[in-house]
Amino acid sequence: MEEVIQGMTSQSSKSGMPPGTLIPVGEGIPSPTVVRVCRYNKTEFSDDVCAPDELSTILLSDETVTWIHLSGLATIEIIQTIGSLFQIHPLTLEDVLNTNQRPKIEDYDDYLYSVLRIVRSENDTIQSEQLSLILQKNCLISFQERENDTFDNVRKRIAEGKGKIRSLGPDYLLYALIDTVVDEYFPVFEKIGTDAEDLEEAVIEKPDPSNMEEIYTMKRDLIHLRKHIWPEREVLSSLLRGRSDLISEPTMRYFSDVADHLYQIADMLETYREMVTGLYEIYLSTLSNRMNEVMKVLTIIATIFIPLTFIAGLYGMNFAEMPELTWEYGYPAALLSMVAVAIVMILFFRKKGWV
Amino acid sequence: MEEVIQGMTSQSSKSGMPPGTLIPVGEGIPSPTVVRVCRYNKTEFSDDVCAPDELSTILLSDETVTWIHLSGLATIEIIQTIGSLFQIHPLTLEDVLNTNQRPKIEDYDDYLYSVLRIVRSENDTIQSEQLSLILQKNCLISFQERENDTFDNVRKRIAEGKGKIRSLGPDYLLYALIDTVVDEYFPVFEKIGTDAEDLEEAVIEKPDPSNMEEIYTMKRDLIHLRKHIWPEREVLSSLLRGRSDLISEPTMRYFSDVADHLYQIADMLETYREMVTGLYEIYLSTLSNRMNEVMKVLTIIATIFIPLTFIAGLYGMNFAEMPELTWEYGYPAALLSMVAVAIVMILFFRKKGWV
Amino acid sequence: MEEVIQGMTSQSSKSGMPPGTLIPVGEGIPSPTVVRVCRYNKTEFSDDVCAPDELSTILLSDETVTWIHLSGLATIEIIQTIGSLFQIHPLTLEDVLNTNQRPKIEDYDDYLYSVLRIVRSENDTIQSEQLSLILQKNCLISFQERENDTFDNVRKRIAEGKGKIRSLGPDYLLYALIDTVVDEYFPVFEKIGTDAEDLEEAVIEKPDPSNMEEIYTMKRDLIHLRKHIWPEREVLSSLLRGRSDLISEPTMRYFSDVADHLYQIADMLETYREMVTGLYEIYLSTLSNRMNEVMKVLTIIATIFIPLTFIAGLYGMNFAEMPELTWEYGYPAALLSMVAVAIVMILFFRKKGWV
Amino acid sequence: MEEVIQGMTSQSSKSGMPPGTLIPVGEGIPSPTVVRVCRYNKTEFSDDVCAPDELSTILLSDETVTWIHLSGLATIEIIQTIGSLFQIHPLTLEDVLNTNQRPKIEDYDDYLYSVLRIVRSENDTIQSEQLSLILQKNCLISFQERENDTFDNVRKRIAEGKGKIRSLGPDYLLYALIDTVVDEYFPVFEKIGTDAEDLEEAVIEKPDPSNMEEIYTMKRDLIHLRKHIWPEREVLSSLLRGRSDLISEPTMRYFSDVADHLYQIADMLETYREMVTGLYEIYLSTLSNRMNEVMKVLTIIATIFIPLTFIAGLYGMNFAEMPELTWEYGYPAALLSMVAVAIVMILFFRKKGWV
Amino acid sequence: MEEVIQGMTSQSSKSGMPPGTLIPVGEGIPSPTVVRVCRYNKTEFSDDVCAPDELSTILLSDETVTWIHLSGLATIEIIQTIGSLFQIHPLTLEDVLNTNQRPKIEDYDDYLYSVLRIVRSENDTIQSEQLSLILQKNCLISFQERENDTFDNVRKRIAEGKGKIRSLGPDYLLYALIDTVVDEYFPVFEKIGTDAEDLEEAVIEKPDPSNMEEIYTMKRDLIHLRKHIWPEREVLSSLLRGRSDLISEPTMRYFSDVADHLYQIADMLETYREMVTGLYEIYLSTLSNRMNEVMKVLTIIATIFIPLTFIAGLYGMNFAEMPELTWEYGYPAALLSMVAVAIVMILFFRKKGWV
Repeated sequence: MEEVIQGMTSQSSKSGMPPGTLIPVGEGIPSPTVVRVCRYNKTEFSDDVCAPDELSTILLSDETVTWIHLSGLATIEIIQTIGSLFQIHPLTLEDVLNTNQRPKIEDYDDYLYSVLRIVRSENDTIQSEQLSLILQKNCLISFQERENDTFDNVRKRIAEGKGKIRSLGPDYLLYALIDTVVDEYFPVFEKIGTDAEDLEEAVIEKPDPSNMEEIYTMKRDLIHLRKHIWPEREVLSSLLRGRSDLISEPTMRYFSDVADHLYQIADMLETYREMVTGLYEIYLSTLSNRMNEVMKVLTIIATIFIPLTFIAGLYGMNFAEMPELTWEYGYPAALLSMVAVAIVMILFFRKKGWV
Repeated sequence: MEEVIQGMTSQSSKSGMPPGTLIPVGEGIPSPTVVRVCRYNKTEFSDDVCAPDELSTILLSDETVTWIHLSGLATIEIIQTIGSLFQIHPLTLEDVLNTNQRPKIEDYDDYLYSVLRIVRSENDTIQSEQLSLILQKNCLISFQERENDTFDNVRKRIAEGKGKIRSLGPDYLLYALIDTVVDEYFPVFEKIGTDAEDLEEAVIEKPDPSNMEEIYTMKRDLIHLRKHIWPEREVLSSLLRGRSDLISEPTMRYFSDVADHLYQIADMLETYREMVTGLYEIYLSTLSNRMNEVMKVLTIIATIFIPLTFIAGLYGMNFAEMPELTWEYGYPAALLSMVAVAIVMILFFRKKGWV
Repeated sequence: MEEVIQGMTSQSSKSGMPPGTLIPVGEGIPSPTVVRVCRYNKTEFSDDVCAPDELSTILLSDETVTWIHLSGLATIEIIQTIGSLFQIHPLTLEDVLNTNQRPKIEDYDDYLYSVLRIVRSENDTIQSEQLSLILQKNCLISFQERENDTFDNVRKRIAEGKGKIRSLGPDYLLYALIDTVVDEYFPVFEKIGTDAEDLEEAVIEKPDPSNMEEIYTMKRDLIHLRKHIWPEREVLSSLLRGRSDLISEPTMRYFSDVADHLYQIADMLETYREMVTGLYEIYLSTLSNRMNEVMKVLTIIATIFIPLTFIAGLYGMNFAEMPELTWEYGYPAALLSMVAVAIVMILFFRKKGWV
Repeated sequence: MEEVIQGMTSQSSKSGMPPGTLIPVGEGIPSPTVVRVCRYNKTEFSDDVCAPDELSTILLSDETVTWIHLSGLATIEIIQTIGSLFQIHPLTLEDVLNTNQRPKIEDYDDYLYSVLRIVRSENDTIQSEQLSLILQKNCLISFQERENDTFDNVRKRIAEGKGKIRSLGPDYLLYALIDTVVDEYFPVFEKIGTDAEDLEEAVIEKPDPSNMEEIYTMKRDLIHLRKHIWPEREVLSSLLRGRSDLISEPTMRYFSDVADHLYQIADMLETYREMVTGLYEIYLSTLSNRMNEVMKVLTIIATIFIPLTFIAGLYGMNFAEMPELTWEYGYPAALLSMVAVAIVMILFFRKKGWV
Repeated sequence: MEEVIQGMTSQSSKSGMPPGTLIPVGEGIPSPTVVRVCRYNKTEFSDDVCAPDELSTILLSDETVTWIHLSGLATIEIIQTIGSLFQIHPLTLEDVLNTNQRPKIEDYDDYLYSVLRIVRSENDTIQSEQLSLILQKNCLISFQERENDTFDNVRKRIAEGKGKIRSLGPDYLLYALIDTVVDEYFPVFEKIGTDAEDLEEAVIEKPDPSNMEEIYTMKRDLIHLRKHIWPEREVLSSLLRGRSDLISEPTMRYFSDVADHLYQIADMLETYREMVTGLYEIYLSTLSNRMNEVMKVLTIIATIFIPLTFIAGLYGMNFAEMPELTWEYGYPAALLSMVAVAIVMILFFRKKGWV
């Protein structure tokens, strides 16, 4: 009789509870937990959804690799059963349920526990979900926040026996999952790259107040991505340094390959961050340039006509005695003086380089 | 007959006194010291306020964990009695009373001394107070700046025997208190997060000079929080590295969990700091945009009417000989030329993209 | 029957494939692979293009140094043949084909694998291509993205027996190639230096909105160059620290010399980055200055004529009773008062330092 | 017959002299050297000014701690006598006389040499002077740039036998002096804090060009203070790490306490630096806001009156045939149309949110 | 028959040549090489210019210290002769001739090779030249880019037997030369300090567009100086760490003294860099302030006169029926209303704080 949680709790409302209290922490509504058990070795392969009441029948064997994948974190009871079945520390289970975890790796005596972040670009916003991985001697347990197709490729590779995956242990499966998570970053960054180039063109060609919002949004997205990527880099380098017994030497080489990809992503991130700063600077200076242009037009028009208008006003005065008014060539002379003033002004502006 | 201090001293006025001089240093008025003694093991539990003259009757026992909690730092004599009773170094006592301490941990031979900062968000301002913790073999002494309900949850958990707290030693109690302090940061940062989002919307939608003050205040709050959080991170990592005899191996795991939370908080802090910088940039550029818009309206109106007014002024001149004035179609021609000038101007602005 | 790839794949579309899948990743169209085998020792020398079906006839010998240079990455089959012939790890081959690699060095048991970036300045844009180097006991295998004349100098030095190259092993050849790659940076930076000086002069003498684009482009180029140079610096320092068996002590001295050059380049990079930031600041302040100058001219003209025009307007009024109008010296008095106002204004501006 | 130096030399004019040349380097006029010898142990105490010709009679004893304090650096001969009497290295003596020293600590075989900076806030400027400390087995020699009351408190504590000072060795005296130096920073920073708060209020309430100068001065003061504080932090941490034989274990605890104070001061420094940057940003944005406000008023007045003035000008034209002029309701209609234009303008501004 | 190089080569044109190719690289025209040999011990001293054909007669002896100083790098043959005479590695000779070297130190088996930069302030520009130092067991070889009086002081000290120089080995001579190089920085920085103070005053009192150029030039000078000083700091600290056999323990103490000076210089550099940034900020804000002031004057004049001019225009209209025009007090009433409007305006401005 599992109980399904209706909504997630905020981190702060869990304050004061004893450690190990199992409540899903995060945003959104957690989905009910589905357990899928996949067993394989060089010759055998099975992949089934496991009903909650069959959980206790899961047996590990040294002959096969067992991959237990849980998606959805709402059914606490299932997670607790898995926890006690595989002797997982209460703090680990608590971390599995707290979807605000910082990516990390922890070496418990019997297992390696790692938290990663799956990132995906959907409808112009960046979605992310938490992935917890527990590597034991002959099995890998993975907890994913939502059910989706992220790991379908890995499952297909196992089913079809492509690559080395069927002949290696759960450590290689761990690598395959982490590799998938890291590879998911590439389309996200390719999208950011395309957006940045579009924005760059817009800012240079035809800047608009909405650009500033886009720059700010892009900056914020990059800040958030960095929050995931930097600690994941630490996860991989501590994995490579730590040399746990659970990971065999040949598999290490593959982890070092994922680490390279992550460094490449971190480089892209820093590059985009600097480009966005550059875009802000170019946007600001374009604003200043536009202002200057507007000011110049105003100045030219005003500065040419203000003296002319003054001359016109002068001869609009109603003094009884104004000899110019009755002079035969008064009007043409006034017009000429106006033209002269205008020409002097235009020459002055040309000298200043404003026209 | 204890003496109660009436006000705190500033750090500078303590200059020149020999080390170990016990004077409360800090801001505000220190409150009188209340001592509460809590004893527990798996089966027993007691929790009493201890009168100042009963202090010497406190006995430690290897059978139970003793938690001596002092709140309020005004009654120097009580603190001195506790100090001599539990052989605490005069420098430690001086640090307990100096509420401007930087969070730190020190390994004295007989005890671990740690200073932390309790942070709370009250009425839109961030309040903080100092917590000093002294861990000895079978007892924990805690000194809190003011009396409040921060640790009621821990006390309740002990009373109700929830979780592992009753079956473990004072090192686990130390963990429980530090965990509470760290968890208190989450609501503070959730509030900052909400404020930042409100401010973000305001700055983009309808910027106002008051936004700048809010940005500045938020920035200053984050600077102050960082001053506490960064050294606390060092406290926990030196705790994890140091492996003191006073902390048992299984409890270490819990400290590593608190350290994770603190890293998460430090990440949030850096994220908000960068967001606030972003808000400042967006605010500045919105100001520039507004200025541009104002300038454009002024320019358009002025530039259209200045030539028109000039033409009007021209035919307002009182020259005796102005043939246009007596020409039958003079007035309509003048009006037409004005309309023509206005149209040319508007077309020019449309070309520039200003209308 | 080798298959030639028609276009490169993006990194993201390779997501989900098993590691070791050989697909060229990057930008542009990969060119067909050409293999060139060069053998030499103190006395012998041969240098031939090797047809795809003769690949298996390549024999290594302890007597001579063999340099196998592959240019173009399109013919996967050739690369695979080389890979199996020289026992190269599938991950290494995958990295060879992924032309977005971050410069790195990896110590496999039998060989050293290093990725570097050849940078060239062509038609005002910076072009780069990937170079992969595999150092084995008596041979060096190099994979270059495109066929060009980068290493003609090295080949010529071997052919002519200039310098020490003929009397030393493949480690010295590795040095010679890396040295060539690093030396290629100098003309790129000398060009950036000249451009920066031109831009500096332009920004100070006659700033123009196009300067901002140039500043931005230069900044972006420097960001991209840094992405290559910083990890290459790590490559060389890990080479110098690592002291692999494959590199002899006397050759080490030469690697330390290349490392010096790379440090010099990194210094230049940082210097230019700071100069570009300085150019942006000078550009912004020149814009502000220009704006100020425009504003001053507008203010002076407007402020002088506005009161004069008002006086003219005053005596243009048609009131029946205006004693000044009929006063004999009315007109000259009005003119004099205008002159007086103009002089007062000009004196005021001179005092303010605006004229 | 000691020779008194009349003015300090600049560092550059000492270039080319052999090391160990004793010339006071720095700013201002050095004051003549006064030597004060203080001897104490648990029971005895003496404190006398020592005439220059009695210097050679100073005898050290294992029974008492001897504190030789020299204030003023002008009398080179005295310093030389002290140097040869206590076997001080010529480079140390040279450093003592060069008052531009960076704070440092050096472990000579027979003594520890440390340079610190005494900082004091006098008449709104920050004054600093150099303090050199030489710790030997049973004596402490201190050289202070000027004679003043900085260490009167320490001398008083020794005289009155307050605290532990009389029962501990010269290492504790070293601590007492360093502690005094560090404690002197607190009033300086408290003053900066108060000034920063005043400036903050001024910048927000009523910004003024003079604020910028104050921000700049504060920034420069903080830069200079950091130049002293950061190396002093290194001095203390190298003292704590180094564990010299001259410093006993119990005294170490006290040095760790001073180190804490210095870290606290360094935190304050960084906090103020960031606040000052914030003040600059708020000042700049307030300037922008003011400009916007001025522009808006100008725009509103001009934009309302320019069309009205045009209408007035229109009917001021002197065409013979202007039907409106003779129309009975011409004047009221013109006035009405002006009012209508003004209302339309005001409504437009209200819509824009400018009124 | 030495060959004299006519002009320096750029670094890029040396690309592709084998290592050890001796071509002077850098800027300007290299001067012909002059060799000067100085021999000394406690009792003997000789100092002569050595003709090119006498080079092979230079004999080293364990009894005396030999200092071979080459100034000017044009005569490759001399440098080659020296190189083969003293068994100097070809890479070292190549570095000696490449005057763009980054300051560094290298420990060859038989000698220590160090590159430093001599900096001098001449006619408001900062000149620098390269100094290469080779320390062998009983001799020091120095290569200076140009012949000048930099080391005259050292030579004089040797000749006069001042200080310890005559009684110590070539390591002390090495120290003396490095000390001279480092001391040369002080006048450069003292000049920058004076310039910065002048600029500071100018920017605050009477900012001018030329200030920006000066700020930029100063910034660029500091960037270039840092490029030399930071690696020299590394040179000295690696010298102090490395503890080469060629440097005796007592001389080490002197190197530590030079290192101190260099740290002091690095501090000054950072201080000036921050001050220059501050100057830029103060310059920008002064520009903004000036703009505000200009705008305010324009606004006040325009805003006062625009309504007045409108009133004047109103009564300049030629409507047949304008009752005010024929009203007896029409003119004075119009004047009064103008005065009233002007007063209201001025009061409004005073309220706003603009007058």
